[in-house]
Amino acid sequence: MHPKKNVLSANFKLGFLGAGQLARMSGLQAFRYGIQVGVFSDRKENEPVQFITPFSQTGSFDSVEDLITFAETCDVLTLENEFIGSEILKEVQEKSGTPIFPSPDSFALIENKLIEKKTFESAGIAVTPYALMETEDDLEAFGEAHGWPFMLKSSKGGYDGYGNETVENINEAVMAYDNLGGNSDQDIIAEAFVDFTKELAVQVARNETGHVVYPCCETVQKNHICVGVQSPASIDASVQDEAQQLAVKAAEAIDGKGIFAFEFFLTKDNELLLNESAPRPHNSGHYTIEGCITSQFENHVRAVMGLPLGSSELCSTAIAMINLLGTDERNAQIDNAMESLRSTDGHLHIYGKLDSRKGRKMGHFTLLGENMAETYERAQQLTQEIRI
Amino acid sequence: MHPKKNVLSANFKLGFLGAGQLARMSGLQAFRYGIQVGVFSDRKENEPVQFITPFSQTGSFDSVEDLITFAETCDVLTLENEFIGSEILKEVQEKSGTPIFPSPDSFALIENKLIEKKTFESAGIAVTPYALMETEDDLEAFGEAHGWPFMLKSSKGGYDGYGNETVENINEAVMAYDNLGGNSDQDIIAEAFVDFTKELAVQVARNETGHVVYPCCETVQKNHICVGVQSPASIDASVQDEAQQLAVKAAEAIDGKGIFAFEFFLTKDNELLLNESAPRPHNSGHYTIEGCITSQFENHVRAVMGLPLGSSELCSTAIAMINLLGTDERNAQIDNAMESLRSTDGHLHIYGKLDSRKGRKMGHFTLLGENMAETYERAQQLTQEIRI
Repeated sequence: MHPKKNVLSANFKLGFLGAGQLARMSGLQAFRYGIQVGVFSDRKENEPVQFITPFSQTGSFDSVEDLITFAETCDVLTLENEFIGSEILKEVQEKSGTPIFPSPDSFALIENKLIEKKTFESAGIAVTPYALMETEDDLEAFGEAHGWPFMLKSSKGGYDGYGNETVENINEAVMAYDNLGGNSDQDIIAEAFVDFTKELAVQVARNETGHVVYPCCETVQKNHICVGVQSPASIDASVQDEAQQLAVKAAEAIDGKGIFAFEFFLTKDNELLLNESAPRPHNSGHYTIEGCITSQFENHVRAVMGLPLGSSELCSTAIAMINLLGTDERNAQIDNAMESLRSTDGHLHIYGKLDSRKGRKMGHFTLLGENMAETYERAQQLTQEIRI
Repeated sequence: MHPKKNVLSANFKLGFLGAGQLARMSGLQAFRYGIQVGVFSDRKENEPVQFITPFSQTGSFDSVEDLITFAETCDVLTLENEFIGSEILKEVQEKSGTPIFPSPDSFALIENKLIEKKTFESAGIAVTPYALMETEDDLEAFGEAHGWPFMLKSSKGGYDGYGNETVENINEAVMAYDNLGGNSDQDIIAEAFVDFTKELAVQVARNETGHVVYPCCETVQKNHICVGVQSPASIDASVQDEAQQLAVKAAEAIDGKGIFAFEFFLTKDNELLLNESAPRPHNSGHYTIEGCITSQFENHVRAVMGLPLGSSELCSTAIAMINLLGTDERNAQIDNAMESLRSTDGHLHIYGKLDSRKGRKMGHFTLLGENMAETYERAQQLTQEIRI
């Protein structure tokens, strides 16, 4: 399936299903190519992408009808989240005639955590120990086999710690199972805690012209939220290579066309376990805007438009990215950012959200340097006074 | 005069007076900071910036009323061309309360070529030999003093060769004088042809926080249209330094706040003569998007918002920029661009214009390399098959 029109034309419109910062940063790259950006938002209030295009529509992610109306105004559609089911996407693609990348078939292989893990296991990629939970006995057995605590996850819709619960014992497990929807229609899987030394991530862009793989970076997490990224990760060259190879293998396993992020745990034995995948630009790849020759956002756009992909080569030996999380509940306004703007190799990005909430992802700051530890520390210093 | 609101906020709107590619590329940088972009266009058809914002207004550049209506929706205004008179800008600024940068006072010193030359001469900057023409005797005398042919220019509104005529003899001079409006209300100046070896340009960003000056680059011209840029220019280090110093002096001479471009002729004797100035991003600075740590567009936005300015350091030893000029009269569509997309260090930019015309600036291509001659030649090769 190919886009309807000549792609590099002001008559071509790339539609984003979702209106957050990932679509916004991708849309800004799409504009580089002189094409139009459409956005479908499921929220009534104004969202970041709605400020960068005159072509926006509001509707429900569950409404095939709403989505078809939007799809018919676009030449190709792409995702910025995992909130629309693959069955709905498939119907929208078929009825509108507008191709969607990553394809609904690719997405069907990762939208459900259980299928996702089976897909990657079948491709020979090690994943974290897991099992489908259907009864109280399953919960008990998993705890005995892998030890308490462990994680319970709803198989669909998890995001930044939502849809996940850590359970310490059988009583908590039974409660969490119910909270997560196990007694209604959600498949619940248990996942063992992995005794990891680092959390890593690799982006892969892929389409019919080939693929490019980004360096393996390290994500710094705090309460299941990514607070920063270091690229390249401080790991052995052999682990760096292996992570990149596994990521490419994973993208191939789902015949992915678009940009993908694969998150890995690195165990004490230097073993890589695939943790999560995302069929879209990913927070761990924001550093690529200035840190790589071609950003994940530009390659996202290129990939879904069927264009040749750009180089993922690093522009510097050490790149640090700090997420700017909301510090206050207020109208979004960034204070004390002057130090970050004054820094020679620093790059500030604000997403244009109208409202700030504590912990909400409001922007990020990328710093290019030579030494990883120093660069990351300096990036933290330059942003520590920022209030947003 | 300061912007009305806290600048780094989604409630802040930067308004562009003009809707072409210079405003578009600046607007894309403004989005980096999470602010809004407004655009005032004097054309009925859709223009590049109108596709990247929901906030656009159409009106006349001569209508104070139209401009005030727009100004009142914005927190700060900036220019992308020289088509609105400084007196109109001053009135709009006063009546709307919305500051304009570069200021109407700065612009008043350069909008008229006669005043511009006097301003820079007074600041000790050598300019090309010129004189105000008022009579046929003036034309005759200028030809005798500086030799034929020479240039006649209307003192206002020149752009890419429009508003200029080369005259070979007194008959042509008399005709051109009339064509250019000398017998109605236009001041006409004569300018001697300078026997130059290179045409150079330097960008300066300046505001109340300080200034940054970009490397002196060389522009490659064909029929008075810039077809390419090489940065840094292949000139002696002393000339490079002098050009940068003169550009800063020129920005100071007009108390410029914003981004400015200064074009120089380099004579056979290695003398620098200021040729033209522009109170806005300039074609000669497009290479800075990938070629410098902070692009002219980002520093344009920073400068007019009163933010600290970013580094103008080069990212590579040789940077080539090729203008992609319209090759056909048709709906804009870019063909044969795959080679340019496949090149590792190449960056393609298309402006999103709906219609192509022969010679119209439709996009550009920037290539980073090590050796200037090789890099420029390769950039030409990578783009020579492009049709747009």
